[in-house]
Amino acid sequence: MPSAAPSLSIAVLGCGTVGTQVVRLLLEQGEELSARAGTRLELAGIAVRSLETERDPVVPRDLLTTDAESLVERADVVVELMGGTERARDLILRGIEAGASVVTANKALLASQYGELFSRADAAGVDLLFEAAVAGAVPVVRGVRESLAGDRIERVIGIMNGTTNYVLDAMTTAGWDVDAAVTRAQELGYAEADPTADVDGHDAAAKAAILAALAFHTRVDLRDVTREGIRGVTPEDIEAAREAGGVIKLLGIAERVATPQGERVAVQVHPAVLPLEHPLASVRGAFNAVVLEAQAAGRLMFYGAGAGGPETASAVLGDVVAAARHRVTGGRAPAESTHATLAPARPADLGARMQIRLRVADRPGVLAHVSTALAQHGVSIESVRQRPGDDGSATLTVVTHEARLDALLRTTAALQATTGVEELLSAYRVEQA
Amino acid sequence: MPSAAPSLSIAVLGCGTVGTQVVRLLLEQGEELSARAGTRLELAGIAVRSLETERDPVVPRDLLTTDAESLVERADVVVELMGGTERARDLILRGIEAGASVVTANKALLASQYGELFSRADAAGVDLLFEAAVAGAVPVVRGVRESLAGDRIERVIGIMNGTTNYVLDAMTTAGWDVDAAVTRAQELGYAEADPTADVDGHDAAAKAAILAALAFHTRVDLRDVTREGIRGVTPEDIEAAREAGGVIKLLGIAERVATPQGERVAVQVHPAVLPLEHPLASVRGAFNAVVLEAQAAGRLMFYGAGAGGPETASAVLGDVVAAARHRVTGGRAPAESTHATLAPARPADLGARMQIRLRVADRPGVLAHVSTALAQHGVSIESVRQRPGDDGSATLTVVTHEARLDALLRTTAALQATTGVEELLSAYRVEQA
Repeated sequence: MPSAAPSLSIAVLGCGTVGTQVVRLLLEQGEELSARAGTRLELAGIAVRSLETERDPVVPRDLLTTDAESLVERADVVVELMGGTERARDLILRGIEAGASVVTANKALLASQYGELFSRADAAGVDLLFEAAVAGAVPVVRGVRESLAGDRIERVIGIMNGTTNYVLDAMTTAGWDVDAAVTRAQELGYAEADPTADVDGHDAAAKAAILAALAFHTRVDLRDVTREGIRGVTPEDIEAAREAGGVIKLLGIAERVATPQGERVAVQVHPAVLPLEHPLASVRGAFNAVVLEAQAAGRLMFYGAGAGGPETASAVLGDVVAAARHRVTGGRAPAESTHATLAPARPADLGARMQIRLRVADRPGVLAHVSTALAQHGVSIESVRQRPGDDGSATLTVVTHEARLDALLRTTAALQATTGVEELLSAYRVEQA
Repeated sequence: MPSAAPSLSIAVLGCGTVGTQVVRLLLEQGEELSARAGTRLELAGIAVRSLETERDPVVPRDLLTTDAESLVERADVVVELMGGTERARDLILRGIEAGASVVTANKALLASQYGELFSRADAAGVDLLFEAAVAGAVPVVRGVRESLAGDRIERVIGIMNGTTNYVLDAMTTAGWDVDAAVTRAQELGYAEADPTADVDGHDAAAKAAILAALAFHTRVDLRDVTREGIRGVTPEDIEAAREAGGVIKLLGIAERVATPQGERVAVQVHPAVLPLEHPLASVRGAFNAVVLEAQAAGRLMFYGAGAGGPETASAVLGDVVAAARHRVTGGRAPAESTHATLAPARPADLGARMQIRLRVADRPGVLAHVSTALAQHGVSIESVRQRPGDDGSATLTVVTHEARLDALLRTTAALQATTGVEELLSAYRVEQA
């Protein structure tokens, strides 16, 4: 390093799994990272809640502080890895006001305060970077924000949560039920003690909302994201998908929808049946993958580790180097882009195919009742399989042709009151290969 | 667009398949692209060799010019899509001297003149962007240059040429020989009338050299890239790979190699046997995919269309928007990074496993001779399969354990003079899953 070059001070907020790895790599690879950034990167401090907590020995004790406020005020780049929303937001805004660029992995914060954070960063002329907030090490944020900036993204579809992908994968390969697979994921460290954020799709919803905002140049309110988690997925659902040549994955899907009232944006998180030929069908374990469907580029897939300390730290440090380069050469990362201002889509704007599984009375005429119920809602049937149970009932698996989503939702509600139908076992969207 | 914002003038050099699509998208999506760039993008002209050539009607005739020199001198962004090296280089340098940023898809030019182009662009403080030069629409250049800037890339391995992947895929699925598959690729427009650049690995070598330079912060001389094309691959080789649970792919591989003399860089292009579990094994047809193996991020894969007019144009326009953003907000793309200055590796520095296929005399003792020849070079055997032929000879397929590459190359040479060996049919590297 030329000793004359001014250095940049980096403040790390939070020293959990990811924070520890960021600190380790900043120290171990400091010279190399500084060479790439074009200036010396100096770790100014690490804000923690308590100085007493036992930590990895790579974390220098003399850099720890509980005074996050004064740390961010003397930083050139604030790296927020503490999680939570209120205090993280306050510290980020304090850093921005003091002229620091911000790197964060906090998807919950971004998804809920996207507009405010961006407005403040743009007004201050600093970077707001968050590659690590979506799909861990997988560089899909930069892909959407920059690589595809010359194209029109039509749809973003991905496996955005590694925990639920591990769980569904374990259910598929080991035949476990969802509780057993979640317990196993917890034992392996893939799932939190309280798995709600993952299992109920909140985490994937936040990521899908962030990608939708970037891809469609529109602010997306998290309340407009429809969300269904994986708690209802049974081994029998997975077996039915397998028989149909598919697998069940929890997908985050953000797409443009043409409507008579103009273009809208739909963001949905739900389990879906994917045919084995789909590029996302072979994503195993805790990996993430995101497919961008663009007008000119066609289908692009980004694949890699969706979580993990070192993996997430890699994405964080890529952003730190980018922010530092901007400090050295001028310029900044793309500002918030909201010029499209598309409205959220409604179920009536969306189409879908659905796999509906019903427990029915095993007697003649039931299929006729079911078919009639579907027809009454304008839903036509692509295939039906009936399998006898051992208790006088049978399982009926219906795959529909593409229909309006509102019609499909009304149909599944109506089927529960249809003569001969004992139980609606499951209803999942079916993706095209 | 605010009418007060100054516009940027874009010069397109070349109006072939990609140039036509770039022009089309610049005109059709001009408002949207301008909104993203933060300034009006104005197509200033399209340099062509002849005004008389028949062209797609989307190309405005009044923008065509044969005076490329004066076009580049009044451009803010020069988009070089003419191919070839000498004239393309002269025009790019002329544009750089005049203060224009450069976007190019010209991998042959970049691989051969990387240092000069970068030095001149860096001296002038302008951008040199080339996402489209490697793997078409697949945004791997930005991935290496920016997303992984905070990590240490150990290895880049990819299917970087769609034509040869189509050919090998057709040989695998249809059982064709290489000539028939190349002819089919030509009929479909995947291969040029003269397929040399693709089939003999020149195209993949240029791309691998570019990625190596970016990933390892070192200038890479194209003459240091070892290169073997697919002309020698037979249906029998593919069948032997299949029996071993793999497929044959033409790979570009760039990697760091630790040696007693310090770290070196190896860049190689050759057909290799990939186990079906490898993420690159399932890349079909003319698609491209590149895997980055990084210290912290682990394995990341980028997948998409490796060629095609609209697909390549998407990557070109992403770079045009990036160059325009830099003009508006200041700053620039990463400069050339050569601080590592690693030397090229030699075969003695490299390790490999190999699948060696031999036609041997079908009589006792031959396997002993072959085993002895391998042992004499320090190469140990992982598996052997012998299959009788119909002419008194047999086919022996040997897979070695990992050994030094120079020893393996000496071994295959020695095997041709080993008693009982009639012919060395093929010798391919075997990749780990």
